Amino acid sequence: MQIKVIRKILEANDRISDQLKQFFREKGILVINLMSSPGAGKTTLLEKTLSDLKKEFNMAVIEGDLQTSNDAERIAATGAQVIQINTEGGCHLDGSMVLEAANQMELDNVDILFVENVGNLVCPAEFSVGEDYKVTILSVVEGDDKPQKYPLIFAESQVMLLNKTDLLPYVDFNMEKASNFARSLKSEIEVYPISAKTGEGIEHWYDWLRKEVKGKKS
Amino acid sequence: MQIKVIRKILEANDRISDQLKQFFREKGILVINLMSSPGAGKTTLLEKTLSDLKKEFNMAVIEGDLQTSNDAERIAATGAQVIQINTEGGCHLDGSMVLEAANQMELDNVDILFVENVGNLVCPAEFSVGEDYKVTILSVVEGDDKPQKYPLIFAESQVMLLNKTDLLPYVDFNMEKASNFARSLKSEIEVYPISAKTGEGIEHWYDWLRKEVKGKKS
Repeated sequence: MQIKVIRKILEANDRISDQLKQFFREKGILVINLMSSPGAGKTTLLEKTLSDLKKEFNMAVIEGDLQTSNDAERIAATGAQVIQINTEGGCHLDGSMVLEAANQMELDNVDILFVENVGNLVCPAEFSVGEDYKVTILSVVEGDDKPQKYPLIFAESQVMLLNKTDLLPYVDFNMEKASNFARSLKSEIEVYPISAKTGEGIEHWYDWLRKEVKGKKS
Repeated sequence: MQIKVIRKILEANDRISDQLKQFFREKGILVINLMSSPGAGKTTLLEKTLSDLKKEFNMAVIEGDLQTSNDAERIAATGAQVIQINTEGGCHLDGSMVLEAANQMELDNVDILFVENVGNLVCPAEFSVGEDYKVTILSVVEGDDKPQKYPLIFAESQVMLLNKTDLLPYVDFNMEKASNFARSLKSEIEVYPISAKTGEGIEHWYDWLRKEVKGKKS
């Protein structure tokens, strides 16, 4: 019974997500569904990306949180267009929430739309929000076993960002182990160690975005 | 429609949880539902607690994970009785899973049963597993805004452990801000800053366990 209901919810979401994909495709927008555990650095990564690339791209953000508009305020401070979705306790964003948010935004001439999901390494992986790619941040403080323990989200992601490399001297984290686990789940996943705080390694992430925006336009 | 189904699921869980509470009460076991984000240190805290208090208490563990029995193996290495629940992708433990696990354990003479939930700061908060108390670990690396952003889990918890204090010199984390947020959600919440890695502050956690076990026996 429960399983049947969940399947229906997922199918309904897939239909809305297909509509969204069509809408974003017509506008030529690269859409990134950004996911991670709470506190792994999604908002900090976006703040830095929006500031560093603001002369190259027109970027907008949909912020997902259970409560508060703290993150949207941080994003707005960079000058980027942002809208906040509060899920009122819900553990993930879904297509209908993003559709409603997108309808309230000015998306003509936007190159990249980032959808920052609720901080959760489980539920968001199951719900497409019309994105081109899922990108998952794993903070090195969380441990190198996380791709093995939370496999779906990494299997669904095109990029894994290993964030907070500035803390590597103080924690036990084996880069190769984490990367190999992720690649065993999705062979073509891109793995970029970065520090969103110091900027270390972040050019690889920017180069990936540049390549994908270019692909959208051609 | 979706909301009605979810309410039914929660009500069914409450019934099983009441049965479990009765069962644990008769055996005089203190039951702790241990929750946190992925990688905040649940298993490390348990390893240390089980080792340090093994002469004082008979302790057992139910491990919840999406996949793998890695954590159960770490717990078993301490000599404690442990059973692994794999949720097969499910984002939280529920009463029926814990009932099935408890039925397979030898719980006579057990003083404390720890239920280590799936790493997730959202969904586990809604499902009682027959515990006396929920205890939530927040790693200081996750940020002091988390009680505000994920309020339900802190509002439901009797104890908030602020873990990884050994990393405090390298991150921005305001202890008072995190504590005040948590207390605004639940005035009587106990807040203990600890490092499960170095043992700093952990005696406060042990004293709380001692007091609660004593309360169970009297």
